[in-house]
Amino acid sequence: MQAKQFSIRSSSPIQLINIDSYIHSAVQESGTKNGLCTIFVPHTTAGVTINENADPDVVRDIVMETSKIVPISDGYRHSEGNSAAHIKSSLFGPSLTLIIENGRVVYGTWQSVYFCEFDGPRSRRFLVKIVPD
Amino acid sequence: MQAKQFSIRSSSPIQLINIDSYIHSAVQESGTKNGLCTIFVPHTTAGVTINENADPDVVRDIVMETSKIVPISDGYRHSEGNSAAHIKSSLFGPSLTLIIENGRVVYGTWQSVYFCEFDGPRSRRFLVKIVPD
Amino acid sequence: MQAKQFSIRSSSPIQLINIDSYIHSAVQESGTKNGLCTIFVPHTTAGVTINENADPDVVRDIVMETSKIVPISDGYRHSEGNSAAHIKSSLFGPSLTLIIENGRVVYGTWQSVYFCEFDGPRSRRFLVKIVPD
Repeated sequence: MQAKQFSIRSSSPIQLINIDSYIHSAVQESGTKNGLCTIFVPHTTAGVTINENADPDVVRDIVMETSKIVPISDGYRHSEGNSAAHIKSSLFGPSLTLIIENGRVVYGTWQSVYFCEFDGPRSRRFLVKIVPD
Repeated sequence: MQAKQFSIRSSSPIQLINIDSYIHSAVQESGTKNGLCTIFVPHTTAGVTINENADPDVVRDIVMETSKIVPISDGYRHSEGNSAAHIKSSLFGPSLTLIIENGRVVYGTWQSVYFCEFDGPRSRRFLVKIVPD
Repeated sequence: MQAKQFSIRSSSPIQLINIDSYIHSAVQESGTKNGLCTIFVPHTTAGVTINENADPDVVRDIVMETSKIVPISDGYRHSEGNSAAHIKSSLFGPSLTLIIENGRVVYGTWQSVYFCEFDGPRSRRFLVKIVPD
């Protein structure tokens, strides 16, 4: 089964975009009952994570605090001015593996998957690969 | 093969709990000789990591330093007071994929898998999913 | 199919080493057309990440900034003096899962996989496990 590729567009420099519905549709379409589902982001200034979907202030706090931890300017040498985005990409990671059970991805009550834009706004892609067991 | 779910209880606000024995039992029980083993934490204020199991001061230093990097109070908006735990959850990650060879998970000499409690103490769960190749 | 193990040698205390060619050879040799490819680092003071391969200043900025975020000395208790390396290992992570399509790992234009040495120089190992779907 080929990986499914999705295109999204970020609207801010730093933004966490809920991609649950894309993942859900890929799993449904595949008809897979049990297996693994790997999300892969083919960019070096973006990433993928899981966090809370109830209070939007959680995502806001993640964006705010990680920009304090990795400041936008800090004596970087890379001339494109987006070194902080590259560093965040490595700290959050470009790949996330989920579990499929009974035809659905297993999530905790408050969990959603977020595409992490660290150098937007721009067009982005991600892949969803399903491996049945 | 269904994923195996385990329940644990943390006893501190921030705590790394060795879960090697749970993973070992799930792999043994499955009879899998070769494949992948994904650990998934269905919580947004917890995570999973690998680190040293020999000197307990390593885990202590990880807990201490990551709480300096992500302070408990830092102008967060989320009203539950656990934003630091959410941020650590994304930095450590909720998912970890291991390799099974000859009926056992491959570890380095000093490696153990830790459930990362960032907002305890409380009851927690994690899943172990095995995909034979 | 057994996981493939590779040995490398770092030449600096902190160093990101491009391992694309090792991964490429393992995938080619396996003859796998579609599936998952998990990279696993069996060390607690090293990790694996993906980042830019075009401008070497990006890797340099990652090394520089993460050493500011996790200082080499910061009141750690672990007596070996490499607590910062252990902490970075957990933040970057020891495992990375990639997607194989049409006989090749899927990468973005600027992406390469890096073995992350945080406590070198020394001899290191990593494993490449391929699971066809």
